[in-house]
Amino acid sequence: MADPTVRPISAADITTWDYEADVVVAGYGIAGVTAAIEAARAGAEVLVLERTGGWGGAASLAGGFIYLGGGTPLQKACGFEDSVENMKTFMKAALGPGTDDTKIDAYCEGSVDHYNWLVDAGVPFKESFWGQPGWEPPYDDGLMYSGGENAAPFNTLVDPAPRGHVPQMSEKNTGEKGGGYMLMKPLVETAEKLGVRAEYDLRVQTVVVDGDRVVGVVAKRYGKDVAIRARKGVVLAMGSFAYNNEMVRSNAPRIFGHPAASIEAHDGRAIQIGQALGADTAHMDATEVAFFCDPQLMVRGILVNGRGQRYIPEDTYPGRVGQATLFQQDNQAFLVIDEAAYEEGMNAESSSAQLRAQPSWVAETVEELEGEMGLPAGSLQSTVDLYNRHAAEGSDPVLGKKSEWVKPIVGPFAAIDLRGRTGGFTLGGLKTTVDSEVLHVSGAPIPGLFAAGRCTSGVCAGGYASGTSLGDGSFFGRRAGISAAR
Amino acid sequence: MADPTVRPISAADITTWDYEADVVVAGYGIAGVTAAIEAARAGAEVLVLERTGGWGGAASLAGGFIYLGGGTPLQKACGFEDSVENMKTFMKAALGPGTDDTKIDAYCEGSVDHYNWLVDAGVPFKESFWGQPGWEPPYDDGLMYSGGENAAPFNTLVDPAPRGHVPQMSEKNTGEKGGGYMLMKPLVETAEKLGVRAEYDLRVQTVVVDGDRVVGVVAKRYGKDVAIRARKGVVLAMGSFAYNNEMVRSNAPRIFGHPAASIEAHDGRAIQIGQALGADTAHMDATEVAFFCDPQLMVRGILVNGRGQRYIPEDTYPGRVGQATLFQQDNQAFLVIDEAAYEEGMNAESSSAQLRAQPSWVAETVEELEGEMGLPAGSLQSTVDLYNRHAAEGSDPVLGKKSEWVKPIVGPFAAIDLRGRTGGFTLGGLKTTVDSEVLHVSGAPIPGLFAAGRCTSGVCAGGYASGTSLGDGSFFGRRAGISAAR
Repeated sequence: MADPTVRPISAADITTWDYEADVVVAGYGIAGVTAAIEAARAGAEVLVLERTGGWGGAASLAGGFIYLGGGTPLQKACGFEDSVENMKTFMKAALGPGTDDTKIDAYCEGSVDHYNWLVDAGVPFKESFWGQPGWEPPYDDGLMYSGGENAAPFNTLVDPAPRGHVPQMSEKNTGEKGGGYMLMKPLVETAEKLGVRAEYDLRVQTVVVDGDRVVGVVAKRYGKDVAIRARKGVVLAMGSFAYNNEMVRSNAPRIFGHPAASIEAHDGRAIQIGQALGADTAHMDATEVAFFCDPQLMVRGILVNGRGQRYIPEDTYPGRVGQATLFQQDNQAFLVIDEAAYEEGMNAESSSAQLRAQPSWVAETVEELEGEMGLPAGSLQSTVDLYNRHAAEGSDPVLGKKSEWVKPIVGPFAAIDLRGRTGGFTLGGLKTTVDSEVLHVSGAPIPGLFAAGRCTSGVCAGGYASGTSLGDGSFFGRRAGISAAR
Repeated sequence: MADPTVRPISAADITTWDYEADVVVAGYGIAGVTAAIEAARAGAEVLVLERTGGWGGAASLAGGFIYLGGGTPLQKACGFEDSVENMKTFMKAALGPGTDDTKIDAYCEGSVDHYNWLVDAGVPFKESFWGQPGWEPPYDDGLMYSGGENAAPFNTLVDPAPRGHVPQMSEKNTGEKGGGYMLMKPLVETAEKLGVRAEYDLRVQTVVVDGDRVVGVVAKRYGKDVAIRARKGVVLAMGSFAYNNEMVRSNAPRIFGHPAASIEAHDGRAIQIGQALGADTAHMDATEVAFFCDPQLMVRGILVNGRGQRYIPEDTYPGRVGQATLFQQDNQAFLVIDEAAYEEGMNAESSSAQLRAQPSWVAETVEELEGEMGLPAGSLQSTVDLYNRHAAEGSDPVLGKKSEWVKPIVGPFAAIDLRGRTGGFTLGGLKTTVDSEVLHVSGAPIPGLFAAGRCTSGVCAGGYASGTSLGDGSFFGRRAGISAAR
């Protein structure tokens, strides 16, 4: 199991440099491309190394949400007010505990500028808002709530604003090109115009050091070692560790065996390369958690745990439902819904139709239903009674579901079995500064080494909002490029 | 904030060794003393370095539980059957997810031998069992349930056996000497008889390396650097990171600001020393969680969360209640109890009388009570109704509280506010082999470096049972000493 190739190699042991550039970027996903662009604009000669046969990474397969706010032109065009302060308040509350507040501050203060930067680089956003419950907009709308800002408990803490910005999908109806692709494509084209070179099928193994300073990397290509010199700096942008079973089991065991929204290249190597140099890590247990249910159904029923109790407002961000279900309810969840609401949900527009399911159980009474579901006698009945008591007045004082979605549940009743229907990717990684320098455990930056994206711990500590990965990957990717080119 | 003194120092840079021994042990708590004994017995000259003015560490201030089983003489004397298999099954279920099963296997298979080893070293155990709910036995009984083995859900998974072994406290009534002291004292005496030397007021800063091999440590004493050569090996046994705010915030933020059952010397230094060498870590988010309520009261009422819902069988190990409250219920808990049960609990024998509290609210009806508590109308009422419905038949199908503790709750009613009443210490740390070698992130052991106790990730991944810290600290401390002396 031991893999000595992760250990740093001394520059003195390199006889030939196969490639050379000012800035060497490992990984051609969202963090890599943004780092490459900024390094090139700062005048550096840039070489990107990618282990697969093409650019894109997990980003180009993603829905494409970028978490932006503080009053972006898109937010304004869609009629929403937002402020940097509100964005900070929400992110610190929803993405913690333990958020890196310096990082969130920088991210929020630079958010409008970052939006403009993306637009200038050719990323298209359509000026329209999708307001229905869902994981993503079903069409090419550019803006959506993507973190539960407009749901309890956050909607009482701070004025909500949608911050999920989605690049316009040109061929959505054919299912070919999603928002993530429409984000990556113009950025890669921008990088190419700036003279950024890329080498593919190169798997970065470790870094080359001269004393304490990182001066290059060593990679494998078709079984052969390739040495690449970085005159100014190396940027690690190689993604999460969701597909490294050993790392997941030791750090984020709750998603062991259930990687999702991730790619096999996410093997944690960048984190290990940093660790082998004495780099510090943070929040290695944190994970995004997908919940495999269509929000258009969820919002019209009640979600109960293995004891028949409600535990989350059903109209919040579905990723928050996923985290609550996996972390706090032992991955036990059922959606209880009545026939009329089920029909309505099935007919609603949704980008998650593939997550719809037939009822697992149906019954004329709640008593019957809870028996069929194997819940303790009276448990679901008391939950439905309490919900209906307040729903009759349009309120949900127990969990704060918005009144527009609160309606008494009347027979016939159905329940959908949602136990174990979660998966996710890891959010923890190398500890970096706001300038994307990789921090040694001593607290000092490692000279010549920079990192961004999901191989770092970014704006998320425990919580998650859709768009924070492409968001902090691109935002701190840019900073990694600027720092490395210095 | 940067502290360069954690970086390893090259042996070539050491001009004078101030001390020298075959095996150098950093930290004179439970892991340190057991390592010292075994190294000395293996023929090594041993020097222990302790940063405070005396031996003991967190261990000597602890209640003294050591988690042992598989049929120890004490278990047998008290009339309990246990098996290695049952012990393994329980530990893997209760201490996960993500347990190091190789470590648990070794620990369980060696448990009876470890008990005998402790007894041979002079640790006294009284052959009597304490069967009441509590954190610790109130008198000098030697055996108690300490992990929820006899409560749901574990009592239906595997035959329960108590495994909390407590050294006999000689002066308990004066409150002077607890079980942890009675564990440490004979072990330190054993070490001294074997010729183990100790130096105090020495704060270990980092290790000294010759190539890849650890050959000593550098410490501070009254501001001066002291170099200590280790001819064979160094054992890190310096405790958890519960008192390192920065590390807690980045890794285990849920207990940020609330360290408990820990000492200020637990500053995470040993973990950082390892990380600076490229050592791997595991489960850095895991924490023990104390819950500040007397179990004699808890078991006689119902625990509800901030929504008035029950969430855990009240008769389980109180540390499990602490974890469930902090991790799964946003640190929100109330104990709802009727007057008769409250009086009975207050009069019961307990070692946790200082955790008893006056009711925060009292009322004649549940409806009144939930109003005073600020819970949503009807929420607590429906919980009490459901509980009473089944309690009338002596059962608790919702959470499986044992029938001996199930009784309908009748007025007058009281509630004790237990919100935020948690604290704890960290369980994550350096990744080690079953022979206590510190693992580099490459997967290979770091030559000359060994570790045990709470600076390592031991038998606990996410869960906890009282006695597992002194348990794996002493068990793998012994192995660290044996390995280092080789």
